[in-house]
Amino acid sequence: MRSIFELMQTICAISTAYGVGGIAVIRVSGEQAIPIVDSLFVGRTSLASAQTNTIHFGRIQREKEVLDEVLCSVFRAPHSFTGEDTVEIACHGSLFIQQELLRWLIDAGCKAAEPGEFTRRAFLNAKMDLTQAEAVADLIAAQSRAEKDLALSQLRGSVSNELNALRERLLHFTSLIELELDFADHEELEFADRSELTQLADEIEQKLQSLLSSFRTGNAIRHGIPVAIVGAPNVGKSTLLNALLGEQRAIVSDIQGTTRDTIEDTLVLDGILFRLIDTAGLRETSDTLENMGIERSLRAAENAQIIVHVGEPTSNPSLKGGELEDVKGTIVEVLNKSDLLDGCSLHGETHGSRLAISAKKGEIEPLKRELVRIAKASMQTSAVMLSNARHYEAVSRAHKAIIRVQEGLLANLSGELLSLDLQDCLSALGEVTGQITNQEVLANIFSKFCIGK
Amino acid sequence: MRSIFELMQTICAISTAYGVGGIAVIRVSGEQAIPIVDSLFVGRTSLASAQTNTIHFGRIQREKEVLDEVLCSVFRAPHSFTGEDTVEIACHGSLFIQQELLRWLIDAGCKAAEPGEFTRRAFLNAKMDLTQAEAVADLIAAQSRAEKDLALSQLRGSVSNELNALRERLLHFTSLIELELDFADHEELEFADRSELTQLADEIEQKLQSLLSSFRTGNAIRHGIPVAIVGAPNVGKSTLLNALLGEQRAIVSDIQGTTRDTIEDTLVLDGILFRLIDTAGLRETSDTLENMGIERSLRAAENAQIIVHVGEPTSNPSLKGGELEDVKGTIVEVLNKSDLLDGCSLHGETHGSRLAISAKKGEIEPLKRELVRIAKASMQTSAVMLSNARHYEAVSRAHKAIIRVQEGLLANLSGELLSLDLQDCLSALGEVTGQITNQEVLANIFSKFCIGK
Repeated sequence: MRSIFELMQTICAISTAYGVGGIAVIRVSGEQAIPIVDSLFVGRTSLASAQTNTIHFGRIQREKEVLDEVLCSVFRAPHSFTGEDTVEIACHGSLFIQQELLRWLIDAGCKAAEPGEFTRRAFLNAKMDLTQAEAVADLIAAQSRAEKDLALSQLRGSVSNELNALRERLLHFTSLIELELDFADHEELEFADRSELTQLADEIEQKLQSLLSSFRTGNAIRHGIPVAIVGAPNVGKSTLLNALLGEQRAIVSDIQGTTRDTIEDTLVLDGILFRLIDTAGLRETSDTLENMGIERSLRAAENAQIIVHVGEPTSNPSLKGGELEDVKGTIVEVLNKSDLLDGCSLHGETHGSRLAISAKKGEIEPLKRELVRIAKASMQTSAVMLSNARHYEAVSRAHKAIIRVQEGLLANLSGELLSLDLQDCLSALGEVTGQITNQEVLANIFSKFCIGK
Repeated sequence: MRSIFELMQTICAISTAYGVGGIAVIRVSGEQAIPIVDSLFVGRTSLASAQTNTIHFGRIQREKEVLDEVLCSVFRAPHSFTGEDTVEIACHGSLFIQQELLRWLIDAGCKAAEPGEFTRRAFLNAKMDLTQAEAVADLIAAQSRAEKDLALSQLRGSVSNELNALRERLLHFTSLIELELDFADHEELEFADRSELTQLADEIEQKLQSLLSSFRTGNAIRHGIPVAIVGAPNVGKSTLLNALLGEQRAIVSDIQGTTRDTIEDTLVLDGILFRLIDTAGLRETSDTLENMGIERSLRAAENAQIIVHVGEPTSNPSLKGGELEDVKGTIVEVLNKSDLLDGCSLHGETHGSRLAISAKKGEIEPLKRELVRIAKASMQTSAVMLSNARHYEAVSRAHKAIIRVQEGLLANLSGELLSLDLQDCLSALGEVTGQITNQEVLANIFSKFCIGK
């Protein structure tokens, strides 16, 4: 699994964001990291004698040309992100200097790092498992607190710990069963207690099921919880979208059917990323284009985790029969234009089962609170959440295999047959954490990283 | 001069380029830098006990929320860029995390740094003088090797050393003259030897004159050496611009007068930044718009340091009488469309006094070499170069004052009168390095910096 050859080269890359800044950091990692940087570094002492986790001021110089005055941070293996000797050079943030420094390092024997190659090395050097490596990319891409929390928890091993615990117990049983196969002549011999195995399989099946259920939320946290705003024409759906976003995102008019296609934008409330989807008004119409818009609205509602159903004082509060029947998410009934009601006391309060708001006047606090409440409730269902499609796919396979084990136990299948399904389950779980993997999967994972991490 | 109050606060800013990157660095500087970061940091040891120039892994945490896993670099005064206690926090490069970390630091007692405030503090804490502080901004903005060399030499004190040496010798004489004034009763008394002073004033006048002359080159290095491409219509000036840039920057056609307004773009050759200016073809015409274009062409040529005069085999090699009479730069005569000449042997060679090229075929190497040769020759005229308009202005004043001193000495003026001009000269020189300055000048200088440096 570990490619010794790829670890033999010393790699370098600009690790800070692209552009001109006060400072920029160029990271160098590998066996030759310290001697290579040292060959370009003139400071009070040489980096060769530097202790780990120390910082050294000096200049980058080659023959007579001085490139810059820099700070070099020295990390000695294994006390570095990659687990290898690493030098981080903080230079002045001119693009010219950054690129020139990279060129000098390559001239001196480094290889330009590929996307994610530092993290890939951290994985290959067993500094982290695959879910943790993936969490690094998620953390860098995090746009909201919930997303950051999710990535950070994964970086700190929540997913791996959960799966490894299951895997180890299953591994124990599997080896007992395989021991039975070695004594195949003694048909009566059962090292692995079938009732204990049944209990374990049930437990694992439930855990995997709950992890799979958590994916909907985990995925929503990463990409934004989808909130569809639906309702009859002209009840103020686009006005509500604009009020939630605090900007004139969607065109608003008194004309029915102003919003034709769905309009999406994201919003962070209380650290949670929401993906708001404004839709075309739902009504019976013979207009082909409008019907296409309505079709899209219904699809958006079906896929949403929260459906904000907007009505106005004069409209029927309940959803029109059948229109939203395939909806799986939570429906929030909202009464817009509450300023048109008699008595202002109702603003910001519920009206019957409906939340009374006025999108036009920006009186939408009750809805914001409700969105946050629903999102948080869904997050609390499980401590560990899957948020990665690759994990979801592998856990699904593990789940199917453990169900086959359960069925096999019920049917009193032989150890040989049980063992096959147990191996499938173990292997699927091992893929998630990277105990079992291949170059293709690794290449695919790390190609999604930015260069320099 | 030093504002104690402004140094009392601890400042923080994102010091790396804006955007998502592998890592980002947030810099915190001031008396409370270490305790403030420590209050949010959970690592193996506290930062309070950390030695200077050491790096510590841990997490940024507030109450129960963990923001990120980070590396904290600790610099203890005076071993830091600003001369104050400084912590640099390297976090994951998500924009959310960067901004949130900044917010946490401000909540914990930091002030958001203003543009250039770290460098301003380095100046106020006497870690560098004003020309060095200005060089930091120039270094960050550097786009070419020559520009970087210029900024780096200034950062390393070339301008200050030159001026301080002059200033000290002048200061010595000035104090002797002022001593004479204290003994005004003894009219015969001359502590300051007038012939020695005359010699010194001559020397200083020459040094200042040579510094002032270097500004043209220094300024050109910073902003690009202006190269005007001029000539009759349709000789291929725009084709030449495109060939030099390696892209289709200017519209090219067979129609005379295709280029109406001047077109500018920059090009780096051998580490030197050139600012190429393509101009309208020069010819007699009654077209008002075209004449405006020609007027602009002539002005571009007057201000250029190098004038590439393009002709073709059939055209008269010399400049048309009077057209370019006010040109001060070096003129390079170029024979374009050399592929139209009989015998290919002339390509890339001089043809009479003219460089033979073919812009259309991309055969322009001789011109590129000539541009680099001229630029390098102009750079070698002086070791120390002024590149900053503020320095130029102050050195001009010092130069005028020292000329008045020379005149005064010739006219046998009294010590009292000489002293006034000497003081003017000293003060102008002191302004360059910041020994004499005021808040307004400082504010103006540092407002041009990026935030975080």
